[in-house]
Amino acid sequence: MKKILVLFLAIPFISKAQHQDSIFIKQMSDDILLNGKAYDWLHHLTKNIGNRLTGSLAFYKAIDWGKKTLQEAGASNVILQECVVPHWIRGHNDAVSISSINSKKQDIQLQAIALGNSLAGKANAAVISLKSFDELEKRKDEVKGKIVFFNYAFNQTYVETFNAYGDAGKYRYIGASKAAQYGAIGCLVRSLSGSTDNFPHTGAMKYNDSFPKIPAVALGLQDANKLWKMCNDSKVAVSMCTHGKFLKDTIAYNVIGELKGSEHANEFITIGGHLDSWDVGEGAHDDGAGVVQTMEVLRVLTAMHYQPKHTIRFVLFANEENGLKGGVKYAEEAIAKKEKHLFALETDGGGFSPRGFSFKMNNDEQLKKVQSWLSLLQPYGTYKLEAGGGGADIGPLAGDQLKTPIAELSPDSQRYFDIHHTNNDVFETVNKREVLLGAVNMAALIYLIDKYGL
Amino acid sequence: MKKILVLFLAIPFISKAQHQDSIFIKQMSDDILLNGKAYDWLHHLTKNIGNRLTGSLAFYKAIDWGKKTLQEAGASNVILQECVVPHWIRGHNDAVSISSINSKKQDIQLQAIALGNSLAGKANAAVISLKSFDELEKRKDEVKGKIVFFNYAFNQTYVETFNAYGDAGKYRYIGASKAAQYGAIGCLVRSLSGSTDNFPHTGAMKYNDSFPKIPAVALGLQDANKLWKMCNDSKVAVSMCTHGKFLKDTIAYNVIGELKGSEHANEFITIGGHLDSWDVGEGAHDDGAGVVQTMEVLRVLTAMHYQPKHTIRFVLFANEENGLKGGVKYAEEAIAKKEKHLFALETDGGGFSPRGFSFKMNNDEQLKKVQSWLSLLQPYGTYKLEAGGGGADIGPLAGDQLKTPIAELSPDSQRYFDIHHTNNDVFETVNKREVLLGAVNMAALIYLIDKYGL
Repeated sequence: MKKILVLFLAIPFISKAQHQDSIFIKQMSDDILLNGKAYDWLHHLTKNIGNRLTGSLAFYKAIDWGKKTLQEAGASNVILQECVVPHWIRGHNDAVSISSINSKKQDIQLQAIALGNSLAGKANAAVISLKSFDELEKRKDEVKGKIVFFNYAFNQTYVETFNAYGDAGKYRYIGASKAAQYGAIGCLVRSLSGSTDNFPHTGAMKYNDSFPKIPAVALGLQDANKLWKMCNDSKVAVSMCTHGKFLKDTIAYNVIGELKGSEHANEFITIGGHLDSWDVGEGAHDDGAGVVQTMEVLRVLTAMHYQPKHTIRFVLFANEENGLKGGVKYAEEAIAKKEKHLFALETDGGGFSPRGFSFKMNNDEQLKKVQSWLSLLQPYGTYKLEAGGGGADIGPLAGDQLKTPIAELSPDSQRYFDIHHTNNDVFETVNKREVLLGAVNMAALIYLIDKYGL
Repeated sequence: MKKILVLFLAIPFISKAQHQDSIFIKQMSDDILLNGKAYDWLHHLTKNIGNRLTGSLAFYKAIDWGKKTLQEAGASNVILQECVVPHWIRGHNDAVSISSINSKKQDIQLQAIALGNSLAGKANAAVISLKSFDELEKRKDEVKGKIVFFNYAFNQTYVETFNAYGDAGKYRYIGASKAAQYGAIGCLVRSLSGSTDNFPHTGAMKYNDSFPKIPAVALGLQDANKLWKMCNDSKVAVSMCTHGKFLKDTIAYNVIGELKGSEHANEFITIGGHLDSWDVGEGAHDDGAGVVQTMEVLRVLTAMHYQPKHTIRFVLFANEENGLKGGVKYAEEAIAKKEKHLFALETDGGGFSPRGFSFKMNNDEQLKKVQSWLSLLQPYGTYKLEAGGGGADIGPLAGDQLKTPIAELSPDSQRYFDIHHTNNDVFETVNKREVLLGAVNMAALIYLIDKYGL
C-alpha cells in the first residue's frame, strides 16, 4: 500500500455532559500512547524475571518488583496481602515418545508438556485414541491398562477463540481422571489451541480423588495429528514420563497499590491482573500484559493528577493459574472487613488490540449505564460492552456476599491461544501499541465508573 | 488465564428477511475457517516466490502462480490484462554511515534503505537535521551542500495508525525534492513507522523534475533517533550511497478471474488486492494477504455453489507500489468497453483481524444500505461501516466517468506499520485465523451487494 490516507474520523454523537469526559479521556490516551511505561515494565518482568509459577523463586522476585513498580507508578501506599498457596513443581522435563508395536523403528519424540497439577508417573502402553468423552463411554471396556489420547480439536468455526477454549477445556481439566476411571494408566490430550505450530500447551488439570492419579500430558498440535493418524493406521504404543509433585503449601502475596478516594475512601474500585504465570515461556500475554496494564492505569491517573472519588485498588493477584488463592483471599478479606466494593475490572485475556469489555452486572440498569458511555470509548477501539464476562480473580468478589459488579477487558482473541501456556508466550509476541491501547480503554472505564458510579 | 469460559454470544436483532442471509454467511464463515486455503497460498507466494517488485522475475512468477491459483479457486475464466509498467531496480545494497566531523572514530553504519523510485547517488557531507518542512523553510539558507535529515515522527496519539502514516507520508514522498530545492545533495528520512525496532522502511518517493534528483534514503527508527541525538550534540557528517535506476518500461499484467453473473453478466463487481510488492521481505501483509483473501472469497463462493447475479471479478493488480499502472489500466479498459461497475472492494491494509469496511459511496443512501447489514457482519468482527475509504487500485474506477462505489477492508491497524515495506514483512507475521476472518467479512459483503445491489 503506497497511498497516503487521511481516514475519515468517525465522531460519534456525544452529549455536552460527556464533552469534558471525552477531553479527559483523550488526554489520558495521548499520555499513555506517548509516555506509557507498560511495555518497558513488561520487558523487565519477562526478561529479567521470566516465568513465575506460584511458589517459585521468580514469583517472589515478581512480588518485590510489583511492589516497587506500583510505588513508582504512583500508588499512595502498597500492601502485601498474605495468602496460603499450593506449590506445584514440574520436576524434570516431561517426555513422550511413540513407537509402532512390534516395530524396531526408533522412538519418535513428541512435543509434550505435563499438565499443571499433574503428578509424576511413568506409563508405557498401547494407545486408545478418542475424539471425545462420549466415545470414551462407548469404548470404556477397551481402556484398561492403556494410555488414553483425547484428540478433541479446537472448534475453528467459533469466531471468538475463547468459545473454542471453553468447549475443549474439559479434556485438559478432567480428562485424566475420566480415563483413570476405566483403568487407563496415562492420559494424553491435544493442546488447547488452534495454532499452526507444534508448541505444547500446559494449563491446570484436576484429579478426582476417587481414581488413580495417572500422568497427564498435552501434545503439540502437529504431533497430536501425527499420533492420531498413526493410531488410525495401526496399533501404537506410547512411552510417557512426568515428574510433577506438590511441595508443602507456602505463603504468597497479592500486591495491592491504592489511590485513596477523596469522597468515599471506604468504597473500592478494583483493577487487576495476575502476577503468577505457568512455568513456561515468559508469561508475557498471560498475564504480564494484564499486570503492566493495571500499573499503566495507575500511572496515567497519577500523571493526570486525578483525584478519585472512591479508593481505587490496583491488584497484582497471586496464584491465578493453579489455585486462585489470591483472588479468593482478596474477597475473603473484603468480606471480613465489610468493605463496600463498587466495581472490579480484570485484564487477563492477552495484551492484544482491545475490542471492549464484558460485564457481569447485578441488573440491566447497570449494564445500560455502562453502555451509555460507548461513544466515549469507541475512539479507542471499544465497540463491545456486553454481558457475559467476569474474570477468575475477581469472580469471588461477585459472589453472594459482596455482589460486586465485575468486568474484564476483551482484547482481540485470534492470536491468544496460539501462545497461551507455551514456551512461545514471550515478550516478542506483544505489540507495544496494542498493550497500551488496552490500558487506555481500562483507564477510561475506571474513570467513568469512579465519576458516575454504577 | 485458566478459567474455562463460555462467553455470552451477542445475537443482534435481525429481520426475518435477513435470516437466510445470516445462515448463508455462517456457512461461508465455517467453510473458510475450516477449509480455507488462503494461508497455504500465502505460504507459497511468500516462501516460493518471495518479494516481487514490478518488473522483477519474481513478479512474473507471481503472475503465473496467480493465474493458476485463480483457476484452482474456481474462476470460470482467467485473463491477463496487459499494461505498461515502470521497471525500477534498487541495484546494489544502499549504505549510510555517520561519523563526527574531525573525529577519527570508526564510521557508524546505519540501518538504511533507499526509497522506491529514487536514483543512484553518492553524498558525503554535513547533516542538517530538521523536524518538518516548516523548519526547512526557516533554515533554507543553511541547506546548500548538505544532507537534509527529516526526522518527522509518527504521531503515536492517533489510534488508527493509517492517520499517522497519512500525516508523515509527505516527508518520504516529496522530501528529497523539497531539500534539493535549496541545494541539499542527499536526503534522509525517518522511516514511516511507529515500531520499536530498527528495520528501515522503503516505499514510493517522487522527484520534482525542477530540482536535482538527489539520493533519498529511509533510516530505521533507532538509528534515526541516534542520528538526531548526535546532530543535536555536535556537527555530524554522513556518507550515503544508493544505486537505484529505472530500466525501460516493460509489460506486466493484471490477473483477472471471473465468476459469470447469472442475471446481469455485463454488470461487474470487482474484488482485489495487488500482486506486486516492494523488493524487501516477502510482501506477506502488503499485499500477499490481500491477494489470498481475494482468492479465498472466490474459493468459498465456488464451494457454496453460489451463482452470482452479477459477474464478480477477482483481480490481482499489477504495480500498485510504484506506479499504479494496473489499477489505472483496469479502469481505462472498463471505460473503453463501457462496462457497468456496480461496486469494487480492495484489501490492502494488512492481513490482520478485520474491524469493518470503509466506503466511498456516491450518496448517503448507498452507505445507509450497507450499514443496514451491520448485524449480519458483526458476528465476524465487523463493527465499522463508515465513509472515508477507497483503495489505490480501485480508485480510478470511482473517477468521474464510472463513478463506481468502492470500499476497502479495514483490518486492525496497530501492527501494520511495524512491518510495512520492510524485510520483516514475512509470512511468520501473519496469523492464519486473522487473514481468514478478513476473507469471511469480504465474502459476506460481496454476497450482500450481489444479492441486493446498491
